[in-house]
Amino acid sequence: MLKIRMLVAAIMLASSVSAVQAWDSLPSKAPAPTNNPTTTEKVELGRMLYHDPRLSSTGTVSCASCHNTMAGGEDNRAGSMGVNGQVGGRSAPTVWNAAFNTVQFWDGRAESLEAQAAGPVTNPIEMGMKNWDQVVTRLKAIEGYQHLFTKAFGKDSISKDNTTKAIAAYERTLITPDSPYDYYVNGDQSALTAQQIRGMEKVAELGCTSCHSGAAFNGAGTFQKFPVNDNGYFEAKFDFKKDKGLAEVTKKKKDEHFWKVPTLRNITLTAPYFHNGSVKTLKKAVAIMAKLQLNKDLSDNEVADIVAFLHALTGKFPKQIMPELPATPGLTFNK
Amino acid sequence: MLKIRMLVAAIMLASSVSAVQAWDSLPSKAPAPTNNPTTTEKVELGRMLYHDPRLSSTGTVSCASCHNTMAGGEDNRAGSMGVNGQVGGRSAPTVWNAAFNTVQFWDGRAESLEAQAAGPVTNPIEMGMKNWDQVVTRLKAIEGYQHLFTKAFGKDSISKDNTTKAIAAYERTLITPDSPYDYYVNGDQSALTAQQIRGMEKVAELGCTSCHSGAAFNGAGTFQKFPVNDNGYFEAKFDFKKDKGLAEVTKKKKDEHFWKVPTLRNITLTAPYFHNGSVKTLKKAVAIMAKLQLNKDLSDNEVADIVAFLHALTGKFPKQIMPELPATPGLTFNK
Repeated sequence: MLKIRMLVAAIMLASSVSAVQAWDSLPSKAPAPTNNPTTTEKVELGRMLYHDPRLSSTGTVSCASCHNTMAGGEDNRAGSMGVNGQVGGRSAPTVWNAAFNTVQFWDGRAESLEAQAAGPVTNPIEMGMKNWDQVVTRLKAIEGYQHLFTKAFGKDSISKDNTTKAIAAYERTLITPDSPYDYYVNGDQSALTAQQIRGMEKVAELGCTSCHSGAAFNGAGTFQKFPVNDNGYFEAKFDFKKDKGLAEVTKKKKDEHFWKVPTLRNITLTAPYFHNGSVKTLKKAVAIMAKLQLNKDLSDNEVADIVAFLHALTGKFPKQIMPELPATPGLTFNK
Repeated sequence: MLKIRMLVAAIMLASSVSAVQAWDSLPSKAPAPTNNPTTTEKVELGRMLYHDPRLSSTGTVSCASCHNTMAGGEDNRAGSMGVNGQVGGRSAPTVWNAAFNTVQFWDGRAESLEAQAAGPVTNPIEMGMKNWDQVVTRLKAIEGYQHLFTKAFGKDSISKDNTTKAIAAYERTLITPDSPYDYYVNGDQSALTAQQIRGMEKVAELGCTSCHSGAAFNGAGTFQKFPVNDNGYFEAKFDFKKDKGLAEVTKKKKDEHFWKVPTLRNITLTAPYFHNGSVKTLKKAVAIMAKLQLNKDLSDNEVADIVAFLHALTGKFPKQIMPELPATPGLTFNK
């Protein structure tokens, strides 16, 4: 079941300006669900599965292909490219700090990282596996994975459930603390420039942080309407409303154009912007958000201040050893 | 110019059985050309460039996509998949130990790793960049690369030449010593099983190591004809002669079906086999090679012994830190 903490956008926006703004730094660990506690063995297995293109029909697409762990956690494309060059309709969200989202996917249709991880593998235009039975059969044929699953979950444990649990456990380690913003709110006054501080005050004053709230600037899983205000010019140019967001899943009128609030952390690394990746630059994205969500026309200086602040949300990426994927010696699954 | 040390296959084969077999272990370092000495700065830059999908038109294909450094140095596909799902006609050779080839590509048309690295980037069905000017323009727009090129090559040094030099310098670190074979020839009698030793003797006795000679079992850049013997059954099944090898480049009759001798190191990790990847398993590949090159019909036991020996050629892979690709904050090159 989809747990939706739906808040009426209008109320939030009205109350935000006067609200006392709390500024939190990113926790150094992400919470794990009780049925999937994070262990070293799961994380190591998950790191391999996440980077293994054999989880796709063509053997060319891994989770990392669209959610690149060597970059901003996504692919810097408007629509991601799955198997056989097929292009999806939404821009890949970043995997960095996804552990702090309480729902996953742009439309929030998955209630956990585990549930999210199950999706793309069998999506025909993403990783294109026929079904999870096929994935499990393939993984079982890889001797190294048999050992690694045994270590992580016990004997004969290769399954859809445990595959997604391992991937999710790995993803919970993909967090980026120690951004200039984090240093600043932890007391280092010199961590932000004067312009960044102006931008920080501006995002609170405007109400951006009413929705992009909390340490991850992601509203902790709240859904919000986008766009709030109709704008024929932007709509003609960027086609924001073509995709009905949550309503594409629920088929309910009241869910039309509702979206999970995406994190602002590392946002400078995740161009192009919005669910359809139609906006190429961050400064344009900021101006559009102000207009469509808050009905504000920002000056160039205000936009520049906010963009400067958003730069301060780029954190430190954990050093990772490149996984060595277990082999199927002397044979291949791929065509 | 292509430097070709062409040896007549028939002579080599005839002389091999009686030849005294030298068994060399893999050097721990690969030789570098005098115009591109290996430095830490180049290797670090090259590691990033090698894994950067922005070197492709779609932003989805890096060198590592087809020459996977988390696996056997290639993609375990018959034909690699480049931009927009296009599939090439040859099976990607492994990047591991490519530093020990004196020519590169299946047809040996590149005389160095540097020359090889220039090819796929602008190949329309591989990485699809229009030309190297476009690549250089893109790299120059990435501030982090400006710094990294400066450190590796000096100020304002982003160019095609230096990009391929950095990638080649990195590739020279991708070597896999310390296989069971290496331990064995260095004196550890227990490093190989009895079956592997039988297989090792068999490959010398049959003459496999006449062409697959030297520490890398790659003939150090010799070209050989494949197939030597015509065989209607195999030809109908595997279509080996459709691709004319070196003659596709030189357009010379005498070069038809001549190929660079590929390394046998890590061969258990690089299925499917042959230039067109038409043979899925190593044991079938061994039997076919014996028949087509040596006109020998091997027994199942002989094949099993040789395959066991080939397993002993899988080395140790260097631990690598995942690169953190420099960003273009707030904007993207990709569609």
